[in-house]
Amino acid sequence: MSYNQLETTFYRLAQLNHASAMLGWDQQVMMPPKGNDSRGRALAELSVIATEILQQDSLGDLFDAAEDNKLNLESWQQANLRQMRSLWTRAAAIPKALVEAEVMATNNCAYAWRSYRGRNNWLDFKPLLQEVFDLSREKAQALSAALATDQGYHNDYDALLDLFDPGTRQARVDALFNELKTVLPDLQHRIMEKQHGLPAPLSPSQPVARQTQLELSRAIMTVLGFDFDAGRLDETLHPFSGGVSDDSRITSRIDENNVLESIMATIHETGHSRYETGLNRDWRFKPLGHSMGMSIHESQSLFFEMQMARSEPFINAIQPMVTQHLGTDPAFNAKNLHRNYTRVQPSLIRVNADEVTYPLHVILRYEIERDIILGRTTVADIPERWDEAMLKYLTLDTRGNYQDGPTQDIHWPSGAIGYFPSYTLGAMNAAQLHHALAQAIPHAAELVGRLELEPIFNWLAAHIWEKGCLLSTDELMREATGDALQAHYFIDHLQSRYL
Amino acid sequence: MSYNQLETTFYRLAQLNHASAMLGWDQQVMMPPKGNDSRGRALAELSVIATEILQQDSLGDLFDAAEDNKLNLESWQQANLRQMRSLWTRAAAIPKALVEAEVMATNNCAYAWRSYRGRNNWLDFKPLLQEVFDLSREKAQALSAALATDQGYHNDYDALLDLFDPGTRQARVDALFNELKTVLPDLQHRIMEKQHGLPAPLSPSQPVARQTQLELSRAIMTVLGFDFDAGRLDETLHPFSGGVSDDSRITSRIDENNVLESIMATIHETGHSRYETGLNRDWRFKPLGHSMGMSIHESQSLFFEMQMARSEPFINAIQPMVTQHLGTDPAFNAKNLHRNYTRVQPSLIRVNADEVTYPLHVILRYEIERDIILGRTTVADIPERWDEAMLKYLTLDTRGNYQDGPTQDIHWPSGAIGYFPSYTLGAMNAAQLHHALAQAIPHAAELVGRLELEPIFNWLAAHIWEKGCLLSTDELMREATGDALQAHYFIDHLQSRYL
Repeated sequence: MSYNQLETTFYRLAQLNHASAMLGWDQQVMMPPKGNDSRGRALAELSVIATEILQQDSLGDLFDAAEDNKLNLESWQQANLRQMRSLWTRAAAIPKALVEAEVMATNNCAYAWRSYRGRNNWLDFKPLLQEVFDLSREKAQALSAALATDQGYHNDYDALLDLFDPGTRQARVDALFNELKTVLPDLQHRIMEKQHGLPAPLSPSQPVARQTQLELSRAIMTVLGFDFDAGRLDETLHPFSGGVSDDSRITSRIDENNVLESIMATIHETGHSRYETGLNRDWRFKPLGHSMGMSIHESQSLFFEMQMARSEPFINAIQPMVTQHLGTDPAFNAKNLHRNYTRVQPSLIRVNADEVTYPLHVILRYEIERDIILGRTTVADIPERWDEAMLKYLTLDTRGNYQDGPTQDIHWPSGAIGYFPSYTLGAMNAAQLHHALAQAIPHAAELVGRLELEPIFNWLAAHIWEKGCLLSTDELMREATGDALQAHYFIDHLQSRYL
Repeated sequence: MSYNQLETTFYRLAQLNHASAMLGWDQQVMMPPKGNDSRGRALAELSVIATEILQQDSLGDLFDAAEDNKLNLESWQQANLRQMRSLWTRAAAIPKALVEAEVMATNNCAYAWRSYRGRNNWLDFKPLLQEVFDLSREKAQALSAALATDQGYHNDYDALLDLFDPGTRQARVDALFNELKTVLPDLQHRIMEKQHGLPAPLSPSQPVARQTQLELSRAIMTVLGFDFDAGRLDETLHPFSGGVSDDSRITSRIDENNVLESIMATIHETGHSRYETGLNRDWRFKPLGHSMGMSIHESQSLFFEMQMARSEPFINAIQPMVTQHLGTDPAFNAKNLHRNYTRVQPSLIRVNADEVTYPLHVILRYEIERDIILGRTTVADIPERWDEAMLKYLTLDTRGNYQDGPTQDIHWPSGAIGYFPSYTLGAMNAAQLHHALAQAIPHAAELVGRLELEPIFNWLAAHIWEKGCLLSTDELMREATGDALQAHYFIDHLQSRYL
């Protein structure tokens, strides 16, 4: 039966994805430097094999036949068919040679990034990044040419947004981000004025050994329901959540002089991990069983990190674990932890930014990448655009500081162009979900205060994790919260937490 | 051109092999237990994809066309064509469903082995092992049916031997092993009598922390030319050498109460690794550039471990490193190290066996697996056969002790049936190569004593590593040593070292 044949094909793709996911994790966590050339080749070849599978001539006929026979399928199968078709049409739109070229270029650029970043070297990095952006534009054009009518893309950048967050379009992002741009600078100003009157948060007086930090992180992950029989925590420069749903590989950045940061990085990635490991096992290896786009994925990590972990009840609740592992430095008392974790201050580095200024980092990147893809600006102009926007949004001077400027993130080097908006859409989704949770479980904050988190996880599981790709992002949010994504839940959250 | 198309096909296979090698390493070193089901599926699918590539109908025509056009190829390309054909004919002989079934069965069995072994559980383990042997017999029959005439197989077991060590046949193994069986029991007896008069070797009085052992191992690996920018050392239950030639992943077994063992396990795997990383880079990703069969591979690890590292000059030379890392326990003086490393004593565990009794462990396993594949005995009879042979060859009683008996090795559970003989063929090759080295570099032992090992590695590189698969095993040994494999070099080595 055509549907079953399609399922078999996508089962194979899931296995290739397992291989790529694990090789990608290994590349960042375990691989010695001279292994990179071989690894890049292997990853590129796996991509090409997957592309060839998706571009087989026979698939079109199978999809037609399955479509004709649709009424004999159960409703979840119909939804799975829709997801398979969606992956197929996207893959079929991008020439195989372009897929291969992009894997090689992003592998080179992301690898070079590791060393160029530290050396503040923009000049040698630029041509590598140029190639990544060129190939990304080419990809966007190919996707747009094939799918614009069907998917309602208004331009090439829509095609990239849609890859990372299906259903998201530039016009909607512009509208939501404009709302934030209107509110945030003033809000930030008022919060900083208020915090100016408070004692400055203390930093720990001693460095904390990496091993100790990892142990504390693992203890907190356990509280958050991470199953160490089905996953690992390791250390990387840029924290990420990888692996597969039975074998979740998350990483944290460990800085001996900044243990407080590593705790939150770990909690953030644990949110991603709980989503992946909480997916519906009945739909394992099927596109229907995948996680949603990145604005939902980030909503889970940010629900964990921002909504839950930076709240007063959570900080009070884990404080004894912190002193148990780290000792009784005054920096680790609950009040000071809370002050640290809700400190608002413009800074150069996105990943260190507080939740009030973070969206401005994202908007800055969004506007640059959007304009490059739409041909309104160029890679060569990135530093100038960056400097202008940092000054305007965060009143910071970044001239000549590429390291803490445009080369700070791995996203562009690794080809994730169209990804950044998801962080802030995710923060907004998280605030809206948290608001809905508080309606559904009015004593949620008390539960957090007792670290009785199961009911909260169960709510997330039922409304997000187990849904897989059954609904669109819009439908998912409407069913979980009663409303499509709105900016005001996020703004309300900031006002109520910080003012 | 048909030859180039074949090269492209085998390039893809090399990349799939990269993925499988790394996923296999991860499975044993990093993977959490619940990841195993997904991992097994992914590895099985990669195998099936590789098999499908090798079983494409078009390959036959390509090989014919390349053969017709052979005279236009350079001689290394002709050799590469021969190697590609050899891989193709083997793969084409085994049905795809059998490949997949074998990957799944061995994955299950090898995984169960991890827990059943420790629990001395033969009964639950037996049916899993039965399935692996059944599939292996089926595979042997399929290979034999397709290739016996062409390759000169006299029976199904020849087909399995040929998979692990191309060119090796049962009749030759029987002859060589009979020679050892004639000599070794008496030799062992005489050595033990001689050693009986010496003080017993001391064991270290304190356990040695895992981290300290790993650091010492890494220091010794550096002396042995291991490049940590192109590889790693990690810890596993069963040491192995994995990864790819640019990214060599070796593991050692660490027992806090047996640091001396972990040192030698590391040196052994370093020998495997130097061979893989020393392969000819001009033939990278090409079958001609592969390492030879396992009797040559083991000859390199055993050259490192047995010929070099257990020699008096080497032990004396690394002794200062040992005390530097481990302290001044009397167990770590050079005399005692030497006594430890040349102690001959029958024992239950193959991997702990000395080089005199080791071949008897191998012969025991060889005779059992050979007889199962040839239908002369069954999996159910393994314990009885084991007990009989242990009593006869090593005068040890193993009844009821499955853990230190037939379930001690991962080879059978993971489907490596036909592999064991390579260890002892490898030991014999190593002795013969060492003899030839001593002719070529008469002051080799002095070089070892000064840890000036480059000339020795260069000799191995020129005669073995860089040759890849250019020659047959027989030709390789003849060119390197002037003689096909003979048992007497090994026996001479034992007599001169131990009597």
